[in-house]
Amino acid sequence: MKQFVVGVDVGGTNVKLGIVDASSRISLRAVFSTRKFISSPRCLIKAISQNVASLLKEGGISKKSVCGIGIGLPGLVDVEKGIVRLLPNIPGWKNVPLKKILKAKTGLPVQIENDVNMMALGEWKYGAGQGYKNLICMTLGTGVGAGLILNNEIYRGPGFAAGEIGHAPLNEHGPRCGCGGYACFERYVGNAALQKWAGKVFHKSNITLEEVFCLAREGNTRALRFWQDVGTKVGTGLIGAINLLNPERIIIGGGVSSSFQFMAPAIRKVIDARVMQTQASLVSIIKAKLGDDAGLVGARVLISSRKY
Amino acid sequence: MKQFVVGVDVGGTNVKLGIVDASSRISLRAVFSTRKFISSPRCLIKAISQNVASLLKEGGISKKSVCGIGIGLPGLVDVEKGIVRLLPNIPGWKNVPLKKILKAKTGLPVQIENDVNMMALGEWKYGAGQGYKNLICMTLGTGVGAGLILNNEIYRGPGFAAGEIGHAPLNEHGPRCGCGGYACFERYVGNAALQKWAGKVFHKSNITLEEVFCLAREGNTRALRFWQDVGTKVGTGLIGAINLLNPERIIIGGGVSSSFQFMAPAIRKVIDARVMQTQASLVSIIKAKLGDDAGLVGARVLISSRKY
Repeated sequence: MKQFVVGVDVGGTNVKLGIVDASSRISLRAVFSTRKFISSPRCLIKAISQNVASLLKEGGISKKSVCGIGIGLPGLVDVEKGIVRLLPNIPGWKNVPLKKILKAKTGLPVQIENDVNMMALGEWKYGAGQGYKNLICMTLGTGVGAGLILNNEIYRGPGFAAGEIGHAPLNEHGPRCGCGGYACFERYVGNAALQKWAGKVFHKSNITLEEVFCLAREGNTRALRFWQDVGTKVGTGLIGAINLLNPERIIIGGGVSSSFQFMAPAIRKVIDARVMQTQASLVSIIKAKLGDDAGLVGARVLISSRKY
Repeated sequence: MKQFVVGVDVGGTNVKLGIVDASSRISLRAVFSTRKFISSPRCLIKAISQNVASLLKEGGISKKSVCGIGIGLPGLVDVEKGIVRLLPNIPGWKNVPLKKILKAKTGLPVQIENDVNMMALGEWKYGAGQGYKNLICMTLGTGVGAGLILNNEIYRGPGFAAGEIGHAPLNEHGPRCGCGGYACFERYVGNAALQKWAGKVFHKSNITLEEVFCLAREGNTRALRFWQDVGTKVGTGLIGAINLLNPERIIIGGGVSSSFQFMAPAIRKVIDARVMQTQASLVSIIKAKLGDDAGLVGARVLISSRKY
């Protein structure tokens, strides 16, 4: 019986792999450094393929019992054609027919997807979004992005580029963003901006967000105030999307979501104050449940629901 | 053969009715003043029902050849249950089971819908959106709202409240809006704001937007500059939605869209400058084609695609 899915989560730093069993648990894992294999896409694909093989061997899993491989990648992915259009942070990845190559190398069905969409799929079916038909699954980290579940399916947009909530402007004028625009939400609440902000608040330029999280947990007033102010910004950045899409739930994941508990009251306050009544009363804001595993678990959803 | 649809477009000022034939043309029309019938919802429903009957009689159309009545209303409409939840500008309309009442009165199938969604349905199938699977149909007038076509169907949201693009904030801080929020897009480009703005520009507080349109058409530099600046605001208000939804087309309708030609270059300029590359290159911005008839024509789409 085909019961296993191999999940692969490609990040700028690491590639994580996992065997996802029929109950969506990750029974075996592997991880390797992306940086060692950035000389060419072929080199990274080979490493992925070898790691998949080792993982199956380690688990004593025959290919016959594998439904397929689901891969999430940090960039623009043509899910239908199976082509990685562009990975901004991994050199050489432009129009790479990953699905075809990896299928040939492994002899297994392959589905490719944007990493944030993979996370959204995982949280939707097995995490904080279970039972919801319309939700925004946002990641707060180096980048700020979202996967959209609308009318009970993932919404990718015609160019597979939907979900860029981090590039909704917070203001008409503001700081330049890496995307080419300015005053983008990400420029206020992305890791780089938050670290700079924390540096100012604590008069210590090298303070990390983990430290500020720990300080808040210990009850430090300045740290608690910092996360409250971040929550206000996060809430403000969500107003437009909530009024536009009327989602039932917003799931917040990514590294910064470890401080969710300190931000949540401020996020809710902004939403209650500024979002339209119907939309505000329907939406719940919740922390992601699957943590770093969301992408791997999402691979199972991707493979189960594949159309292509 | 059932070939006709009766379209009804309920506005705060007038109720428009039309017989829409199989080729989506409006073969017969009627209009009456909403204000005369605002004493109670029953009173307005009776007037609609009588006007539908007269229109059918006038056209010599038997009920047997009518597929149904499609009604658009300016407010929150539960399309599934057939209940009008709230019409903010028509007194007494709260939780009115319009579908059931009108069906009983007319003996015809009835579908109810939000008016902006009706317009979007019309433009999508018979107007500026033909052939597109993902579009935003925005109305620029007293209110600023949108109907969303996503993955080839209308997206209403779980509370039937989606599409409120006019209540995406343009700034973190700004003028209070009727919706309870502040700095909303509508507070910058809704009719009230534009008239005030035009009054300042032309040092004439009672100048109308029609006059400014006529001046622009005559080549008046100040009027041309005014519409260009409005276009910049409109473009700015669209950035977030385009990055989030990656639509193929944005259709602009409503009263202010008569000046579309004067705003269009500025709208495009903002989008090219501030929207992400994939999203900007895929999206076209176009004026609505069906004008005031979009809602009536949309009734045909609503009736043809009814699920409820």
